Amino acid sequence: MTTPLRLGIAGLGTVGVGVVKIVQTHAALLEQRAGRPIVISAVSARSKSKNRDVDLSDYAWEDDPVALAKRDDVDVYIELMGGHEGAAKDSLEAAIAAGKDVVTANKALLAIHGQALAEAAEEKGHVIRFEAAVAGGIPVVKALTEGLAGNEIKRVMGVMNGSCNYILTRMEDAGLSYDAVFDEANQLGYLEADPELDVGGIDAAHKLALLSSIAFGTQVDFDAVELEGIGSVTIDDIRQAADMGYKIKLLGVAQMTGRGLEQRMSPCLVPNSSPLGQLQGGTNMVVLEADAVGQIVLRGPGAGEGPTASAVMGDVMDIARGFRLSTFGQPAKTLRKARAARAAVPAPYYLRMRLLDKPGALSKIAAILGDAGISIDRMRQYEHADTAAPVLIVTHKTTRTALDEALAQFETTNVMTGTPVAIRIEAV
Amino acid sequence: MTTPLRLGIAGLGTVGVGVVKIVQTHAALLEQRAGRPIVISAVSARSKSKNRDVDLSDYAWEDDPVALAKRDDVDVYIELMGGHEGAAKDSLEAAIAAGKDVVTANKALLAIHGQALAEAAEEKGHVIRFEAAVAGGIPVVKALTEGLAGNEIKRVMGVMNGSCNYILTRMEDAGLSYDAVFDEANQLGYLEADPELDVGGIDAAHKLALLSSIAFGTQVDFDAVELEGIGSVTIDDIRQAADMGYKIKLLGVAQMTGRGLEQRMSPCLVPNSSPLGQLQGGTNMVVLEADAVGQIVLRGPGAGEGPTASAVMGDVMDIARGFRLSTFGQPAKTLRKARAARAAVPAPYYLRMRLLDKPGALSKIAAILGDAGISIDRMRQYEHADTAAPVLIVTHKTTRTALDEALAQFETTNVMTGTPVAIRIEAV
Repeated sequence: MTTPLRLGIAGLGTVGVGVVKIVQTHAALLEQRAGRPIVISAVSARSKSKNRDVDLSDYAWEDDPVALAKRDDVDVYIELMGGHEGAAKDSLEAAIAAGKDVVTANKALLAIHGQALAEAAEEKGHVIRFEAAVAGGIPVVKALTEGLAGNEIKRVMGVMNGSCNYILTRMEDAGLSYDAVFDEANQLGYLEADPELDVGGIDAAHKLALLSSIAFGTQVDFDAVELEGIGSVTIDDIRQAADMGYKIKLLGVAQMTGRGLEQRMSPCLVPNSSPLGQLQGGTNMVVLEADAVGQIVLRGPGAGEGPTASAVMGDVMDIARGFRLSTFGQPAKTLRKARAARAAVPAPYYLRMRLLDKPGALSKIAAILGDAGISIDRMRQYEHADTAAPVLIVTHKTTRTALDEALAQFETTNVMTGTPVAIRIEAV
Repeated sequence: MTTPLRLGIAGLGTVGVGVVKIVQTHAALLEQRAGRPIVISAVSARSKSKNRDVDLSDYAWEDDPVALAKRDDVDVYIELMGGHEGAAKDSLEAAIAAGKDVVTANKALLAIHGQALAEAAEEKGHVIRFEAAVAGGIPVVKALTEGLAGNEIKRVMGVMNGSCNYILTRMEDAGLSYDAVFDEANQLGYLEADPELDVGGIDAAHKLALLSSIAFGTQVDFDAVELEGIGSVTIDDIRQAADMGYKIKLLGVAQMTGRGLEQRMSPCLVPNSSPLGQLQGGTNMVVLEADAVGQIVLRGPGAGEGPTASAVMGDVMDIARGFRLSTFGQPAKTLRKARAARAAVPAPYYLRMRLLDKPGALSKIAAILGDAGISIDRMRQYEHADTAAPVLIVTHKTTRTALDEALAQFETTNVMTGTPVAIRIEAV
């Protein structure tokens, strides 16, 4: 076991540079822990001349990541370019074909092509590891697939997009509108080049789809994630949810139900006092619920050079130590295709609406809810200066289907202005 | 890899029965994940006739755990008896000598004899795994030795004794004295047969010593843990700490300093609003700080049938999957002997004292602190009905040595009644 493990790193952005720094500064520590040296053979990136604040002169340079992936002096191909098509996919496929192990931080690629890639790798007896793709520095893939391997997983939940959590907590703290904080976050460089990946929940949904697969032994199915971004969350929602004892979070939830696998990534209310409710700023949190262990909460940085590089190196060290876990925790060919269950699990909902100052307005709304079988837990009507009163309702548990019927009925009344807002309250 | 992995389980208390239940109820799931069946060959416990609410008829019975450990049909010896001498130690040594892998939940045994046992196992090419020995169901050994394997660990902290945390939070919630809550906890069966293991901090210190070893690559050294239990924490401390924005926790802290390895298990103040400060009841929490990843917080059940059995099974599954990590994350022979540094890291302190109603009383105290080089961050004097005023002081960072000198000086004044209380404030 004193043969060095030789890495080829494609992508020298923040994370790639972070990995190079760890390999350079902790060479002795890594060798002691792995029982063998960890070395970098070659690197690849778009621009060779860019100053990256790290010495790359000892490593071979490849302009083409596919060429890097095939090199004879590379044992582990580390893909840190991102993107679910193009160079990332081509090079990863080339690495698998060439019989390399793969470590990647690419959530989009695996959420969309993970099943095919894992099958291809496993046919060759090689592994794809992706700890860095989910919740940054938090070793959640390891906790789920290994630490909790004796459990039947019941539910996985998480705040897994730091930018969205930053926006939501900043709106509340500063009393600013979504648009104002969005612009602020964009200027601070907190958002992806395509901000919809963040605020539309897509990035977080990629992560959820990967967690679902390892939690439930199912083929990764990103298209089945019910997806709703944070763009429609208003400062009024945040304030009035707070008034009811809740925070609004972009929350991912995956659970196996009698009707199939439910995967949701959407704004949800969680209690103020819960660990998820108390999560501020860019930090990530994942909650794992399983039959034997109960509830485990993991909290840590969800992005950034050090945390993401730490996750990449955790995978590299596993490979160096001879641990060869299947990509999704069990052989890819044994993963089931799950039926997608949409909103299968009933939940209480928070409803916000504006009712006109008309006699009987509230009773019309209450009657519609009652007819739909939805009972009211709490209700508040707020003072108002104009002709419409803000009304908040917290329902008891109901299905989304029943709720949607009631919401449609609301439109047929003439007691409401604007469109009512409905946000699920997740029990945590 | 379709050869079954055959377990021998010694100790059929809560945890042992939990492991049997998981193996029985999740046979198919475990086989799918491990790629091979997990089966129980034989079990051992003190009483064969005791009703354990689980069917043991398919397994061979051994009265003697040493005989169990040596059986030809056992690949992994699971030691769940407890105790750092006697049957637990003898049988574990027998298992190692017979060339078995070992999984144990025995923190005392490993904290005291871990180095010798690990060296013996590794000489034979076998592993000892102990996830269940630290923080119950939280996969913290795995997170530290594997997930964070690319990091230099800076500090490890934790609330790792649920009974102590229950007592401290119950004292605050109910406004009860330590003695009253101790009795209550004892009657509820929350405490060990020897309660000093819990409230004296010994059990938690065993766990801390194990975490230190895997965090810093040092030989486990339980004797070097600075140990102070919760018996001297009063309801006044808890109330007045709360008034200053803090909670009192039995906190374990391990960090490598310029002067050596500091390991402390003692009551500490942590901010109300920190994850540690918000931890209620019997839940455990471990905080890992490392150079690349920053801070990771893990929270979960620290004890009980399901959680502890979950941790045991995590280790069993690693072995079943062919992952053979050294006991302490690197070969035992490469672990350094660390110099023990006592109270090497300066910290702010909370001081509580009662000063007599004499002119100049407070100035005498302030002068002693000043002469010792200790500056005052905040000070409060409370209303009082008798002749002595409760005074709280929060100092700026100071060494414990300087503080102890000042405390000794206090005794030479004649302005104080009783002995002052000093509790470290840990930055979290």
